[in-house]
Amino acid sequence: MSQSPGQLLYEGKAKKIYASSQPEVLRVEFKNSLTAFNALKKGSFDNKGELNRNIASLLFRALAKAGIKSHWISDEGTNDMIVHQVKIIPLEVVIRNILAGSTAKKLGIEEGRVLQQPLVEFYFKDDALADPFVSDDQILMLGIASPEDLQELKRLGLKINESLKAIFLQTGISLVDFKVEFGKNTEGKILLADEITPDCCRLWDLKTNEKLDKDRFRRDLGNIKESYEEVLKRLKEKLS
Amino acid sequence: MSQSPGQLLYEGKAKKIYASSQPEVLRVEFKNSLTAFNALKKGSFDNKGELNRNIASLLFRALAKAGIKSHWISDEGTNDMIVHQVKIIPLEVVIRNILAGSTAKKLGIEEGRVLQQPLVEFYFKDDALADPFVSDDQILMLGIASPEDLQELKRLGLKINESLKAIFLQTGISLVDFKVEFGKNTEGKILLADEITPDCCRLWDLKTNEKLDKDRFRRDLGNIKESYEEVLKRLKEKLS
Repeated sequence: MSQSPGQLLYEGKAKKIYASSQPEVLRVEFKNSLTAFNALKKGSFDNKGELNRNIASLLFRALAKAGIKSHWISDEGTNDMIVHQVKIIPLEVVIRNILAGSTAKKLGIEEGRVLQQPLVEFYFKDDALADPFVSDDQILMLGIASPEDLQELKRLGLKINESLKAIFLQTGISLVDFKVEFGKNTEGKILLADEITPDCCRLWDLKTNEKLDKDRFRRDLGNIKESYEEVLKRLKEKLS
Repeated sequence: MSQSPGQLLYEGKAKKIYASSQPEVLRVEFKNSLTAFNALKKGSFDNKGELNRNIASLLFRALAKAGIKSHWISDEGTNDMIVHQVKIIPLEVVIRNILAGSTAKKLGIEEGRVLQQPLVEFYFKDDALADPFVSDDQILMLGIASPEDLQELKRLGLKINESLKAIFLQTGISLVDFKVEFGKNTEGKILLADEITPDCCRLWDLKTNEKLDKDRFRRDLGNIKESYEEVLKRLKEKLS
């Protein structure tokens, strides 16, 4: 596929991806839009893209220090990130430390149950199917990932969880759960891709249990912008 | 729990379970009722219990010859089965040879895709939650089964599948998928329990692809009774 620099390659719900002047390097623009429930609910606020770019950038850099390679190369402007091009593995990898959201509901368990061990879940990335929850055996049946890649995704997910949990703990935030995506570079190496932001994490204030993440939008709790700003402020204090 | 002989211990959607005069032995009565979609759709026909008792009995005995132990001890009367008492593991173990039903729908795959390998799935038996699909890791998190028991359920499910597939093939029927349940006896041994009948199998005629199972009821295809009778007739010819 030939790409001219600056060409829009893909527009998602929260990001746009552009070709850059270098091969195998892309520019990601973080949008101000906010969606939930497979984009049935839509919103936005003015500096959301900038906040998320900055949060993701801080976290990718902190994870790199812990030995976890991501697609992040550098930041650009206020809303953009330069990244390695990867072929996304179409799985949302969810790691849960405390039960909340869809899994708590599905299993009839009240939100807030602390798990003895982190739980890794996979959802098949497919908007038309509303990202169905899939088992390891279903992933192998569909040929989405090899058994080795699946093990690597679990290993990486749990390793990222350990680092992120520790980072957020320092900022007085409990990492309840989060979703990450991975991609393969041209050498076949699996890199952490996409983003890590309050859009795809559940972050509860350790003292007040106040939600500092997209659940404020999903559940109409207000102060969305202020919560994202609070997360960035706390991370900056510890990570910058 | 003290049980008096003949006491009704449990009534399910398709069976009643009674205490017998012997300890650790129960009597199962196969009812004429037919339900689908977590009992939102209800029906019945006059000899359904008898047909299912006879089909399940033939299959349990055939599986025993292949080394698969079930709770079946003997038949009694027209609708009843004497069984070993087990503590049911609350998982529906589904084995698929051809994609159909909920999984085909969830994954956006047309019904009828032949799988390269049988797929094992687990659903958490809980009527109030509508039996949600669960991953191995979710089963372990919930403490429903130990890692060893989970492996044994998969091994048994696949072994039963091999035997059942061969049996139905002889009768000109393709075993598309089926659901089984397992229980532990007082010695902790896992036995095949519940039933194997057209209520919980997808059975397609090899030549015509005609459905010979509960999908006739789910999908209002008519000739339900005749299809169950046809399955019993064919099994009797080969297994009696």
